[in-house]
Amino acid sequence: MAFRQKHLLGIEPLHPEEIKTILDVAETYVDLNRQAHKHSDALKGLTQINMFFENSTRTQASFELAGKRLGADVMNMAMQASSIKKGETLIDTALTLNAMHPDLLVVRHPHSGAVDLLAQKVNCAVLNAGDGKHEHPTQALLDALTIRRAKGRLHRLNIAICGDVTHSRVARSNLILLGKMENRVRLVGPPTLVPSQFKEFGCEIYDNMEEGLKDVDVVMMLRLQKERMDGGFIPSEREYFHRYGLDAAKLAHAKPDAIVMHPGPMNRGVEIDGTIADDINRSVIQEQVEMGVAVRMAAMDLLARNLKADREAANTGVMV
Amino acid sequence: MAFRQKHLLGIEPLHPEEIKTILDVAETYVDLNRQAHKHSDALKGLTQINMFFENSTRTQASFELAGKRLGADVMNMAMQASSIKKGETLIDTALTLNAMHPDLLVVRHPHSGAVDLLAQKVNCAVLNAGDGKHEHPTQALLDALTIRRAKGRLHRLNIAICGDVTHSRVARSNLILLGKMENRVRLVGPPTLVPSQFKEFGCEIYDNMEEGLKDVDVVMMLRLQKERMDGGFIPSEREYFHRYGLDAAKLAHAKPDAIVMHPGPMNRGVEIDGTIADDINRSVIQEQVEMGVAVRMAAMDLLARNLKADREAANTGVMV
Amino acid sequence: MAFRQKHLLGIEPLHPEEIKTILDVAETYVDLNRQAHKHSDALKGLTQINMFFENSTRTQASFELAGKRLGADVMNMAMQASSIKKGETLIDTALTLNAMHPDLLVVRHPHSGAVDLLAQKVNCAVLNAGDGKHEHPTQALLDALTIRRAKGRLHRLNIAICGDVTHSRVARSNLILLGKMENRVRLVGPPTLVPSQFKEFGCEIYDNMEEGLKDVDVVMMLRLQKERMDGGFIPSEREYFHRYGLDAAKLAHAKPDAIVMHPGPMNRGVEIDGTIADDINRSVIQEQVEMGVAVRMAAMDLLARNLKADREAANTGVMV
Repeated sequence: MAFRQKHLLGIEPLHPEEIKTILDVAETYVDLNRQAHKHSDALKGLTQINMFFENSTRTQASFELAGKRLGADVMNMAMQASSIKKGETLIDTALTLNAMHPDLLVVRHPHSGAVDLLAQKVNCAVLNAGDGKHEHPTQALLDALTIRRAKGRLHRLNIAICGDVTHSRVARSNLILLGKMENRVRLVGPPTLVPSQFKEFGCEIYDNMEEGLKDVDVVMMLRLQKERMDGGFIPSEREYFHRYGLDAAKLAHAKPDAIVMHPGPMNRGVEIDGTIADDINRSVIQEQVEMGVAVRMAAMDLLARNLKADREAANTGVMV
Repeated sequence: MAFRQKHLLGIEPLHPEEIKTILDVAETYVDLNRQAHKHSDALKGLTQINMFFENSTRTQASFELAGKRLGADVMNMAMQASSIKKGETLIDTALTLNAMHPDLLVVRHPHSGAVDLLAQKVNCAVLNAGDGKHEHPTQALLDALTIRRAKGRLHRLNIAICGDVTHSRVARSNLILLGKMENRVRLVGPPTLVPSQFKEFGCEIYDNMEEGLKDVDVVMMLRLQKERMDGGFIPSEREYFHRYGLDAAKLAHAKPDAIVMHPGPMNRGVEIDGTIADDINRSVIQEQVEMGVAVRMAAMDLLARNLKADREAANTGVMV
Repeated sequence: MAFRQKHLLGIEPLHPEEIKTILDVAETYVDLNRQAHKHSDALKGLTQINMFFENSTRTQASFELAGKRLGADVMNMAMQASSIKKGETLIDTALTLNAMHPDLLVVRHPHSGAVDLLAQKVNCAVLNAGDGKHEHPTQALLDALTIRRAKGRLHRLNIAICGDVTHSRVARSNLILLGKMENRVRLVGPPTLVPSQFKEFGCEIYDNMEEGLKDVDVVMMLRLQKERMDGGFIPSEREYFHRYGLDAAKLAHAKPDAIVMHPGPMNRGVEIDGTIADDINRSVIQEQVEMGVAVRMAAMDLLARNLKADREAANTGVMV
């Protein structure tokens, strides 16, 4: 099998063949989820724990449904209301959970690197559901699957990632994935929100939407993360929409068949015009959500297979 | 089959035969729930999502147990803590959930009509778990089943609905259902809490409990919804209990075998005397809760059958 | 079978043979939880409801996993956000839940005795997950199993329970259990936190850690429950650690093979030194968590068997 990871901590550690494997397996789950009977036993007998140290109804729901449809015993832990408040350290929390023998641990945490740290302390497969400004690998994978299905391929595409790049782990994971698959990525937005150090990823940076969108195949809008802007420049929404919000006039500069993406939840009238978001000929925003469940099913399925193989290789059938 | 609805948005759209069908199916689930092994596979492979935009431990628990006992993959979404806070519109939330391919969507929302609106945007069966002051159909159905079991019939009964009618979707759905089944309904309470426009439903209105309860078969008390009274008249609890609270003296005016109902949670000593609530010869309040689970199992089972039939009729087996 | 209880309300009502039976059954679940496929159907078709009137991520998670791995339909109810707020009484809440026909009811409540009261009102098996300062039986059982596995026996051991005994239902349940199994228990801590009336349990009381730990087989540290100290003496953490915190120097007074326990979550540097907590040759803290899931599986399995037998004896197969 072309997928050899123990964890899914980011896009960074993945080989392009591994990305392709996840997307191929995800395709089968897209089909399953469209059936009336949308349940398999791929994870039957396994325990999945979702630990969200940051609220995310949407991502947590996607992982929860993914696990339940694969037959796992799924448990959500709302970590805000938990022992964290009682002063327990992240490591102690991790070791405690580990002692309950989960097989799959899905973790979101506000600090970059926290999920990697946690993965070193446990015996199960860990999936990063977003850590600080670092990575959000399943988001990048679902975006990739959406693009591949819409464009028929996932290479040699011109892709513009637009808006609040600074505060976005979504942008970062997407940049890495799209680069690995040999696409040309542009970052478009105000200099305050598109740090120049992102040039190291080999992408071009534009301050002007008309130029940035010129002839692109994919327009990927980002959510304006006002809640993460501490102290610095906060643009007025009206001004922001005027200069950087995606509307028909700006989209006209992209290729005639360019698709429009957004990771949600949208600020309509801020980073995107509602009409564009709802245009079923251009917008694939709902399909992104659908692909999200399928990609998470694929990732958990593949990690569980590796976990099983590792345990059998250890020649015990028993995990301590 | 006598039940042809795609959704359960209210009692209003239901034919009396459809009401009867739900209650008949619910009877089989009353039996199942009393077994040691209380689990069926009627919804196996289907996904049920509970979206509660308003807290309701009791109703949500009833729907959750109903779905789990029928073998569905059930997911609760606490919408207060969700994307709503991030400014997402109700429609975007609905479309997002829809893209995850639920089969059954149970929705409670503080605004009348919100659930209907949402149902127009999704591909699955929607159940209204209470919308504003509009409808709460499963409550009316569980009340109907409780009455039918206690009285042996659901027609030509004299039924008094007492108390805070103004703020009550429970009263409204019950009025409609009991009217469709050809019962005579009276509303009893202070004029400030029993709006005269309810006469359009063909019911009599009383300001006096003794007169209002005279010779009725069923006394249905409502919860005094102080939390929904904004600005207007708020009665003192003591005064309210004196005039409108159900006690033995007032109940003596009803038929000797009249039953006492309450949708819960009760304000003991406000709208109902504790002794009456606990009198197992008169009160069917616990049975209402029991019927609640059974009625919700029946409603979901019937809607899932129609969903399946629709999908097969569309001759695809695939839902997009 | 040696386990004849209808409920698990505390250690107090248990016969030593019953304690032994729970631990023996738990051993089989320790094995199951270490398998790749960690799921049984022992509770299939049954409904488990977790009612936590006090937050406890850790204990609730342990019970939730236990039920799910045994195949029960499990529902969590966050009682803070519930009808309690609407003024409903505990008894009404209990009767409401009972009407939904749960088979197993797991309850945590801030008031001592609340769980016993509730158990008298329902038809199902009730498990006390901690009530006020009264009992926390599954914690004592998981501690007992951990000790038995580490020491090879559960009798004639010298065990020191150290720290904040006053606010600890954990200490109380452990004292009772360890006494029943004929161990010698010492309580060690400042007089303000170790009430002299505990002498009635037949244990010795020490104010000095060095003396208290002398030659013990087991050192059981308690969490300093600052959140429960109302008004009275609150020690400075530094002073507390100096005098009563477990470090290498104090532990040196215990037997060379003494084990170190803590119910979690730990205050590192307050009641226990982090180095000791992490010392895999001494600390069995992670194993305590692991035993917790197994012991809860065993308790629910045994109670469900008795429930089934009772129902069959009632010669009905039907529960009303």
